[in-house]
Amino acid sequence: MTHEAGIPLGIRFKLLSDTPQDSAAQVVSDVVIGDYRDLDTLRDFARGCDVITFDHEHVPTEHLRALEADGIPVRPGPDALVHAQDKGVMRAKLDAIGVPCPRHRIVSDPADVAAFAAEGDGFPVVLKTVRGGYDGKGVWVVDDVTQAEAPFRAGVPVLAEEKVDYVRELAANVVRSPHGQAVAYPVVESQQVNGVCDTVIAPAPGLDEALALQAEQLALNIAKELELVGHLAVELFQTRDGRILVNELAMRPHNSGHWTQDGAITSQFANHVRAVLDLPLGDPRPRARWTVMVNVLGGDYPDMYSAYLHCMARDPQLKIHMYGKDVKPGRKVGHVNTYGDDLDDVLERARHAAGYLRGTITE
Amino acid sequence: MTHEAGIPLGIRFKLLSDTPQDSAAQVVSDVVIGDYRDLDTLRDFARGCDVITFDHEHVPTEHLRALEADGIPVRPGPDALVHAQDKGVMRAKLDAIGVPCPRHRIVSDPADVAAFAAEGDGFPVVLKTVRGGYDGKGVWVVDDVTQAEAPFRAGVPVLAEEKVDYVRELAANVVRSPHGQAVAYPVVESQQVNGVCDTVIAPAPGLDEALALQAEQLALNIAKELELVGHLAVELFQTRDGRILVNELAMRPHNSGHWTQDGAITSQFANHVRAVLDLPLGDPRPRARWTVMVNVLGGDYPDMYSAYLHCMARDPQLKIHMYGKDVKPGRKVGHVNTYGDDLDDVLERARHAAGYLRGTITE
Repeated sequence: MTHEAGIPLGIRFKLLSDTPQDSAAQVVSDVVIGDYRDLDTLRDFARGCDVITFDHEHVPTEHLRALEADGIPVRPGPDALVHAQDKGVMRAKLDAIGVPCPRHRIVSDPADVAAFAAEGDGFPVVLKTVRGGYDGKGVWVVDDVTQAEAPFRAGVPVLAEEKVDYVRELAANVVRSPHGQAVAYPVVESQQVNGVCDTVIAPAPGLDEALALQAEQLALNIAKELELVGHLAVELFQTRDGRILVNELAMRPHNSGHWTQDGAITSQFANHVRAVLDLPLGDPRPRARWTVMVNVLGGDYPDMYSAYLHCMARDPQLKIHMYGKDVKPGRKVGHVNTYGDDLDDVLERARHAAGYLRGTITE
Repeated sequence: MTHEAGIPLGIRFKLLSDTPQDSAAQVVSDVVIGDYRDLDTLRDFARGCDVITFDHEHVPTEHLRALEADGIPVRPGPDALVHAQDKGVMRAKLDAIGVPCPRHRIVSDPADVAAFAAEGDGFPVVLKTVRGGYDGKGVWVVDDVTQAEAPFRAGVPVLAEEKVDYVRELAANVVRSPHGQAVAYPVVESQQVNGVCDTVIAPAPGLDEALALQAEQLALNIAKELELVGHLAVELFQTRDGRILVNELAMRPHNSGHWTQDGAITSQFANHVRAVLDLPLGDPRPRARWTVMVNVLGGDYPDMYSAYLHCMARDPQLKIHMYGKDVKPGRKVGHVNTYGDDLDDVLERARHAAGYLRGTITE
C-alpha cells in the first residue's frame, strides 16, 4: 500500500522482504529476499538507498543504529522507534512527558503481579511482554495470581497494567516530517474483536470536540517529543469517566488509518512517504462525512473470487483492498472502505462486504 | 497508473515494455523487455497470461488476432481496437451506426484534397494519416492545395476531414465489460494547446444536460456496437451550432479521464482493469463538484525537485501524478489533479502547479 501511494509521487522503492510471497514483494519491482534480523543482510540492502523506512517495527534497534552509523538515514530513527518496539521504554517516556497512561509497572514474577494488583483496584490485571506482541499476541488478561505465570515463561521483561474501564477505543493518527511539519488525521473509533482490529469509524462518532482535540494534541506532542519522522498511530482508551489514556504506539502506517486511502485528501501511506523523504505533507482532512474501514479476515473458504464478484456487484461504491495473501482462518487478508453521509448505511455496507468475503454472511 | 489501480484489487500484472525506463516498467514487478511489433515476442509473453490489455493502441491488429487464435483473451479485442488504430475504419463504422462525425473521405492525392474541399465549404481541410498519429502528430491543417502534399509522402492512406467550427472539445469516457455492463463518466471539457491536451475540467462547465446525455449515450452506443471491452474515450467537438461530432476514439484509459483518479468514486484505471477481467464495474460518479486535471509538460529545467517541493508546500490538497520520465521540453511527464466547489479556484491551483513544475510560472 506504501508502494501504491509512492507511484504517483514518482517514488521508487527497494524492498527487503522475508519471502517472495509477502504482499509488498508481489507488487514492488526491486525486491531483495532476506532476513531483517541479520545485520549483514540489512547493510547490503541499505547500500545505495536514500532513506530506509519500515512497514513493521521488528527490525532490531541496534541494527538500525548500525545503519545510521553507516550514514544511511533511518526514518523513523531507532531512538524514536524503540518506543514502539519496547512497551517498557514507551511507558517510561510517556510518563516523563506527562502523557496519561493506564497505571503500569514492570513486574518480575507472579507475586509481583499480585502486589501490583493490590496497589490498585486488584485483579484483573493486563500483562504484556515488553517486546514482540501485536494483534493480541503477547498480551494476557489475568484474573488471579495463578494465571500470571504464563507471561514470564519466555524469560523477557513483563509489563503489568491496570485493566482500564473503557467505553471504547480511539486512535489518533499523526505524521511528522524531519522539518518538524506535522499533520493530524481526525480521531477515529477502533473496534476490536478478539484483540484484533475489526472496524474503524472516521471520525469517532459523538466524540466530544475537546476530547478529540486533546487526543490529536497528545499524539502530535508524542511525535514531537520523540522527534519521530513518519506516521504515528496512538491507540487510546476512552474511559467511562471521560479521560483518554494511551494504550499502544505504532510508528508506521497503521490499521486504524487505512480508512484514509479512500476517506482523506491525503492517505496515511502518502503522508508517511512524504514525511520520510522530507517532502511537504498533504492535507489530512476527510473527504466524506463518514468513512468506515472493516478488516477482511480469512474464513473457511480459501477462494474468495465469487464473494469478491458478489461484493463488487452489490455495492459499486465499495473500495476493496486485498493484500494478495493466502487465505487462512483469522488472517487479515484485506480490508474494505466505504464512505457517505449516513453512518448506519456506511457501516452496514462495509460490514456486509467484509462478512461476505470472510464467509460469515452468505446473502 | 493501471498497476497502481490493480494493487488494491489484488490484480498482478506482467508487463511487456520497450525499455526498462518506461514508466510502467519502473513500478511493475514482472517485466519483460521486448518489441510489441514482433509476434514471437508477443506469443512468448502471452503464454500463461489470463488476459492481455494495453496502455497504447499500436500493437498490430494481425498480431492480436494471432494471440486470440492461440486462445489468449485480448481485451479490447482486435475487432474493436482496429477502430482506434485506423481512422478510416473508425469513420466508416461510425457512419454505419449513425454516429455524427465531421464530413470526411479517404483522399488519394492533393488534387483529391482540393476536390474534397470544393465539395464542402472549401479550405482549410484537416488531413490525417489513418494510422499512427497521436497528440497532433500525423495531423495537418492545410489552407490550400500546395500545403496538401506532405501527408502523402509516407505512402499511407490519408483521411480528409472538414475543419469543424467548434466552440470547445469535450470527451465522453465509458467502460464496458464482457458481460455488457457499462458505466459512463461525466462528460468533460478538454482544452488543447498545440494539439496536446492541456486541461480537463470535469464535468464540462455549462454543458446543456441534453447534450451531455447525448454524448454519454453516443459513447455507450459506440462501445456496444464495437463490442468493446475496457475503457473508451470519445473525443468530441461541440460545434457553434450546438451539435456534437466525434473527433477521435481511444480504447484505453485516456488523458481526458486522468481526473477520475482523484475526482471519481472509481478511477478509469480501476474500471478498465475490472472490465478487462469481467469483474463488476465501479461507480463512475464524481466525488467533488469540480475536478480539474492539468498535464505537466517538460520545460527547460530537467530537475523538477525544488518545483515539486514548492507545489506540495503551496497546496497541501494538490494531487501530483508523476510518470518517472526524464524531462524533455514538451514531453508529458505527469499531471496534477485538484478538486473543490469553486471552479476558478480549482482551475487556478491546477494551472499554477503544472506551470510551476514546467517552469513557466516562477512565483
